Amino acid sequence: MRILSDEVVKHVGKTIEIEGWLHKKRLMGGLAFINVRDRHGLVQVVVQDKDEVEKLRGQQIGTVLRVKGSVVEEPRAPGGAELHDPELTVLVSVTEEPPIEIDKPISHKSEHLDMLFEHRVLSLRNLQEQKVFKIRATMLRAIREYLTDHDFTEIQTPKLLGAAPEGGAEVFKLDYYGKEATLAQSPQLFKQIMVGVFERVFEIGQAYRAELSATTRHVAELTMLDIEMGFIENHDEILDLVGDMTATVLKRLYKEHAADLKSLNAPELKLSEDGKVPRLTVTEIHELYTKGTKTDTTQEKDLTPDEEKWICEYSRKQLGSDLVYVYEFPMETHKFYQKKNPDGQTVMSADLLFRGVEISTAPMRESDYATLVQQMKDCGVNPEDPSFKYYLQAFKFGLPAHGGCGFGLDRFLQKVVGFNNVKEATLFPRDINRLTP
Amino acid sequence: MRILSDEVVKHVGKTIEIEGWLHKKRLMGGLAFINVRDRHGLVQVVVQDKDEVEKLRGQQIGTVLRVKGSVVEEPRAPGGAELHDPELTVLVSVTEEPPIEIDKPISHKSEHLDMLFEHRVLSLRNLQEQKVFKIRATMLRAIREYLTDHDFTEIQTPKLLGAAPEGGAEVFKLDYYGKEATLAQSPQLFKQIMVGVFERVFEIGQAYRAELSATTRHVAELTMLDIEMGFIENHDEILDLVGDMTATVLKRLYKEHAADLKSLNAPELKLSEDGKVPRLTVTEIHELYTKGTKTDTTQEKDLTPDEEKWICEYSRKQLGSDLVYVYEFPMETHKFYQKKNPDGQTVMSADLLFRGVEISTAPMRESDYATLVQQMKDCGVNPEDPSFKYYLQAFKFGLPAHGGCGFGLDRFLQKVVGFNNVKEATLFPRDINRLTP
Repeated sequence: MRILSDEVVKHVGKTIEIEGWLHKKRLMGGLAFINVRDRHGLVQVVVQDKDEVEKLRGQQIGTVLRVKGSVVEEPRAPGGAELHDPELTVLVSVTEEPPIEIDKPISHKSEHLDMLFEHRVLSLRNLQEQKVFKIRATMLRAIREYLTDHDFTEIQTPKLLGAAPEGGAEVFKLDYYGKEATLAQSPQLFKQIMVGVFERVFEIGQAYRAELSATTRHVAELTMLDIEMGFIENHDEILDLVGDMTATVLKRLYKEHAADLKSLNAPELKLSEDGKVPRLTVTEIHELYTKGTKTDTTQEKDLTPDEEKWICEYSRKQLGSDLVYVYEFPMETHKFYQKKNPDGQTVMSADLLFRGVEISTAPMRESDYATLVQQMKDCGVNPEDPSFKYYLQAFKFGLPAHGGCGFGLDRFLQKVVGFNNVKEATLFPRDINRLTP
Repeated sequence: MRILSDEVVKHVGKTIEIEGWLHKKRLMGGLAFINVRDRHGLVQVVVQDKDEVEKLRGQQIGTVLRVKGSVVEEPRAPGGAELHDPELTVLVSVTEEPPIEIDKPISHKSEHLDMLFEHRVLSLRNLQEQKVFKIRATMLRAIREYLTDHDFTEIQTPKLLGAAPEGGAEVFKLDYYGKEATLAQSPQLFKQIMVGVFERVFEIGQAYRAELSATTRHVAELTMLDIEMGFIENHDEILDLVGDMTATVLKRLYKEHAADLKSLNAPELKLSEDGKVPRLTVTEIHELYTKGTKTDTTQEKDLTPDEEKWICEYSRKQLGSDLVYVYEFPMETHKFYQKKNPDGQTVMSADLLFRGVEISTAPMRESDYATLVQQMKDCGVNPEDPSFKYYLQAFKFGLPAHGGCGFGLDRFLQKVVGFNNVKEATLFPRDINRLTP
């Protein structure tokens, strides 16, 4: 029976069988030291027998092996034990040398990223890369568990749509049985419709943005978490929920993946002690920034990119929090489905910033049918457009006060790990230059 | 503070507040009996006061209400209690009568399905419809928990691809920054690549099939579960895992949603007592069917659609199982990535049938690089095609014996509930005739 790498140490003194990939091979004198990789890690094997060493001749990294050997305690080996006197069986022979060194991580410097992605099939076999996507799987699980515990129902809504809700050049278009269809940029309209059904819904799904430039912040196909909740009294309820969820998930990742995050050189996690995410208005940030940097932004409407980074550093240092909310956005940023503040000057929306980037936008929605129709007109969106027929029906026949958020999961993972580019947190990224692998 | 419907009965004798949608309204004499719907169900409210009854005048189903009233035990009311002496607040007024009756489920007869989907925004507010998608959410959760417990890593792979792996007319094509891209019909190639990384992976995601006809079995955008596992000894390991997972999920659904499934008239669940899914070869089924129906199919290669239905009934009645595996498929069904049986005559693949339809195909993959390349050529697929470059790299540099399954989740849910059409198990179905809502 196959024993997995992390269980080997429990069998000291016994003969066991392992299976995995040849991950590293060193020949010293007549000896071979090999590392065998399986889904839980590495096992070191010391090959002394001449015939066994011979079996490895010409076998390259990636060769699939079965190894029967006796377990010997060895504190310097991965997992604290190694196999001696092995009998090797080559299950799949690899005779060509791989184009990259799998046991050494490919550099994540921006000039090396294209090589990283071009060799993704093999570079993901590196243990450091694996950690990133193990953390990703835990992140998804933690989010789902949190939202399910808070009485949210998971939904899946279509990514094939008719006309794009907000138009724009950044929409992928396709031929749908002779008609034009588009790929969903977000499940915005559907999740609001579903508030009328389940009150609280979420979706984790793909979203498509035909971004016209390659940046460190964008991919063409991204994974979004969308949350929507009805029967809320005020905007605070959304911010509390999204903030608490994010902090809860972060704490879990930093607990369950403490060693992984450390070895990835992820930043230390800072969250405020009272469990709340600090909140600052756009105006307050302009003032703090102007004071702090001597660069006057008080005449700016929205935050500048540099302010986003600056306020995150401020929040980490001064407020002890990697998470910070920015709210009271100027009317210039207003989208038709967002509620305005009673002052008539600002939007009832907040951005959740994390380590220098916006990971989520969490607005209150306009739930009054007549006001919504007016806002559509004000935003140059035609409420008579057939694509809004079903959306508006949900409001006409009763939607309670509601709000929610769109949450970029690739970007969140990127910043958890401390990557510079969102693509590094995506298995097989898609952008204007890359449609493979 | 808002009390949810299923908690009302715990407050007998007290005054509480509820919020929800006006779901039903009956006027009798000067009295109004209303049902208020929230995310957990219904609350009955008896309105006696003239001024309060007046507030309901002209308010249609869907009106969003806050109701403050005293809780009185009433065994005939939903949840065993109702509200008396209420003070009503109209939060969102609905003055137009909805186009469908929300408290009565829309018929699921095939001639009514178009109406069901056209009014999906409102028809989903019906409690019977809600149950279907609550069961769906539990199904997703149960699958994820099972696979995570069995050491599988959840992945997300891109739906935007270059050339289609198997070509064909049933592929959606789109403009990708001036190049042609296609929408993934399955994550087949990616999940095999990922076996080289995590050994055991799964994905729950959307898949796209430009089906050229409208059938009860197909949608253009479907939700697929894809599983792939490496380091297996034989095909049985896949069938055992997929069979056990399906049975485990079914048992959980029938336990957690017993009342829902009963009220939806779902069939009673039958699973074999030893926990195993019975297995029959295609040849055995031809023989059983020929004997049982006096229609000779022994000269047929693949199963006929009628045989699929028939063998499911046979399995339920004779073998006590709603699940049945068919295996040893004829070479006519062979796809290049599937392993052949040693007999050279049949494919090492099995279909999992459930209540008359195939819900999953679970083959062993061909993991030998040279054999795979030969099989591609035999199947008329060009291994030199750039779209296979990365896929073949995974094999060239070592993939262990592996297999897995594609599993149609919409179809599975359809048959759990007992629907005739897969679209009924999809929130917002997409087919050749429908791209809305």
